[in-house]
Amino acid sequence: MRIYLDHAATTPLRPEAREAWLAAHDVLGNPSSIHAAGQEARRLLEDAREAVAAVLGCQPIEVVFTSGGTEAANLALKGLWWSRAAGAGVIVLPDGEHHATLDAVAWLSSTQGAHVRAVPLDPLGRIDVDAFASALPGAALATALAASNEVGTIQDAADLAARARDAGVPLHLDAVSALGQIPVDFAAWRGTGGDSSGLVAMSVSAHKVGGPVGVGAAVVSRHGRLTPLVHGGGQQRALRAGTQDVAGAAAFAAAVTAAERERSDEAVRLAALRNRLVSGILSSIPSARLLGHPTERLPGNAHVLFPDAAGETLLFLLDMEQIAVSTGSACQAGVAEPSHVVLALGLDDRAARSVLRFTLGRTSTDADVDAVLTRLPDAYARAVASGARSDRRS
Amino acid sequence: MRIYLDHAATTPLRPEAREAWLAAHDVLGNPSSIHAAGQEARRLLEDAREAVAAVLGCQPIEVVFTSGGTEAANLALKGLWWSRAAGAGVIVLPDGEHHATLDAVAWLSSTQGAHVRAVPLDPLGRIDVDAFASALPGAALATALAASNEVGTIQDAADLAARARDAGVPLHLDAVSALGQIPVDFAAWRGTGGDSSGLVAMSVSAHKVGGPVGVGAAVVSRHGRLTPLVHGGGQQRALRAGTQDVAGAAAFAAAVTAAERERSDEAVRLAALRNRLVSGILSSIPSARLLGHPTERLPGNAHVLFPDAAGETLLFLLDMEQIAVSTGSACQAGVAEPSHVVLALGLDDRAARSVLRFTLGRTSTDADVDAVLTRLPDAYARAVASGARSDRRS
Repeated sequence: MRIYLDHAATTPLRPEAREAWLAAHDVLGNPSSIHAAGQEARRLLEDAREAVAAVLGCQPIEVVFTSGGTEAANLALKGLWWSRAAGAGVIVLPDGEHHATLDAVAWLSSTQGAHVRAVPLDPLGRIDVDAFASALPGAALATALAASNEVGTIQDAADLAARARDAGVPLHLDAVSALGQIPVDFAAWRGTGGDSSGLVAMSVSAHKVGGPVGVGAAVVSRHGRLTPLVHGGGQQRALRAGTQDVAGAAAFAAAVTAAERERSDEAVRLAALRNRLVSGILSSIPSARLLGHPTERLPGNAHVLFPDAAGETLLFLLDMEQIAVSTGSACQAGVAEPSHVVLALGLDDRAARSVLRFTLGRTSTDADVDAVLTRLPDAYARAVASGARSDRRS
Repeated sequence: MRIYLDHAATTPLRPEAREAWLAAHDVLGNPSSIHAAGQEARRLLEDAREAVAAVLGCQPIEVVFTSGGTEAANLALKGLWWSRAAGAGVIVLPDGEHHATLDAVAWLSSTQGAHVRAVPLDPLGRIDVDAFASALPGAALATALAASNEVGTIQDAADLAARARDAGVPLHLDAVSALGQIPVDFAAWRGTGGDSSGLVAMSVSAHKVGGPVGVGAAVVSRHGRLTPLVHGGGQQRALRAGTQDVAGAAAFAAAVTAAERERSDEAVRLAALRNRLVSGILSSIPSARLLGHPTERLPGNAHVLFPDAAGETLLFLLDMEQIAVSTGSACQAGVAEPSHVVLALGLDDRAARSVLRFTLGRTSTDADVDAVLTRLPDAYARAVASGARSDRRS
């Protein structure tokens, strides 16, 4: 029996999402076709858009369906860049962002004339909001994670949005990891005023909340100007071309609606499980340490530093015990590099290679936590011994 | 009983694709995760990549899964542009291309320094290959439809690729409409030599061959250099970031494998049905005329000019008779404009508003053709009368 504690990487498809995906295929039609079949498909699509908007606290027209969070973040960042900065400008970029953001900004910087103003994190992973505000004046755009996909620290999104609005700078929030775990409310975070500044774009993904992979959304404020990343037939306010994935949108809507319905109960349940996991680990492995914020963190996230062990070794040893965890973002495609997020907390390279991320979700149980607490101490001892042998060899 | 003759817009999901999609969800894991669950997902993904590559005549590593044909074309065009032309260069663009290509190129032209060299079509929709070859020298890239999504004319893809290779220019082929209808063979079209010139990229889509919407691929030659459109975690040769959609890829693989297995038999069956449809229309409506090439055309495509009737009126009248057809590309998102493809055949604006596209597919039957032949003459007479009334009013 495999124990899956990597819900931040991807989550099991919810039955509601599976049913919605299958049911959408009873309608045959491209939602851009003007015949009755096409219009029937369009109704399903717009119903899905309304349901997603209702959860995200935005208007249906502000939901731009994409192929996932990475495309949504790229659309927001590059789209804002191209619509605002003609060849030169500043992007405000906190440390510890997701690779979708980092790599999109790096490309804008290396080829499109963008200059980066970095903003540090505090040791618990919170963005230094004063430094953020100081970096804003004159910037073309700013971006931030609503909550860290690695260490789980939650930012004060409304405060970041207010600072951006005050500075007249458009802000993109990456809410991929936040969705389903904490309230994600575009209108509330956005506040009032600002039009094309403040929070204008937000990215989310379906497969982190029990929807299918390959579906996500960029929420783009009615007031936000954005150049499309994918040009073509003018679908979705001409912000994202391509035949619209009705079944994917319907499945996303079903998943996120269910996730939102369960969210506050699940947050309590997962935080309790997670806290038991963390205290169990810390009591059996006294040198271990929880990274990220002790309370302002995603309920399903435990991110633990094991100072004397390589995270990758621990991961493999737990995997042999049928326990799936992560050393960081799966989105780095298996590259065994020290986590830039852990480095941004002020820890050193060795520490950044000595972490494990346990992420709990809808299917996680007390038995999962028990299994980790039973099997981890031995894996840890073996990882420490293996590290000591490597150190002697090198 | 609805009659669906709009298979070029989208096709019914094949049972094999549905099964593959569902089965892929029995495996829970992000294919970029290094634990066993992730590696199991990765095996499914790579199996799908191999199956798609086998159909497309390329190597598995050359298959870059995307969210569909439009994203694939945008990736190929913008990716080739950015990797080849630093701020200035020429794009060779035949008339009558799909909007994904037209709009991507228009954006490169209006913001990124591209200059367009247009290449005319002949009256049957074939690219003037000598004009194409004359436009190539010094160009940054060229693009072409392997077969027209509107009028159905098939190009000589291997010849276009050879001309591009001879001129040292990289070529993108949009094979979205060709796939499943005619042989689509990347290696055969590409020929030998050329490395980073000649055919280096090709776009295809799953939902045109019975796969799900939201899945497609850019075939990118091992020798082709390409800047990604979506940056992030380094997936797929770092050409297209984002969590890879294992279920979508598996469903695409199942669909395209089935479509390829049936293709030559289906081509004969559909061409016979289509020919009966066309001759029936022409004999009951003598002023009607088949557009596109009489023989070098997609087997399921009938594109008919009705000189005295508005295509849109005809579409609505047929829709009331439960027959779904199109006036052109669904990808123009319902905008009632004269078809630029029909204009490219040398016909006038009025003609370009007086066309219907019937596209047959896997589920099309003799009864469908009978129904059109029975109901079209009356719809046509009413559309002509309605047009005459509008003309008197204006």
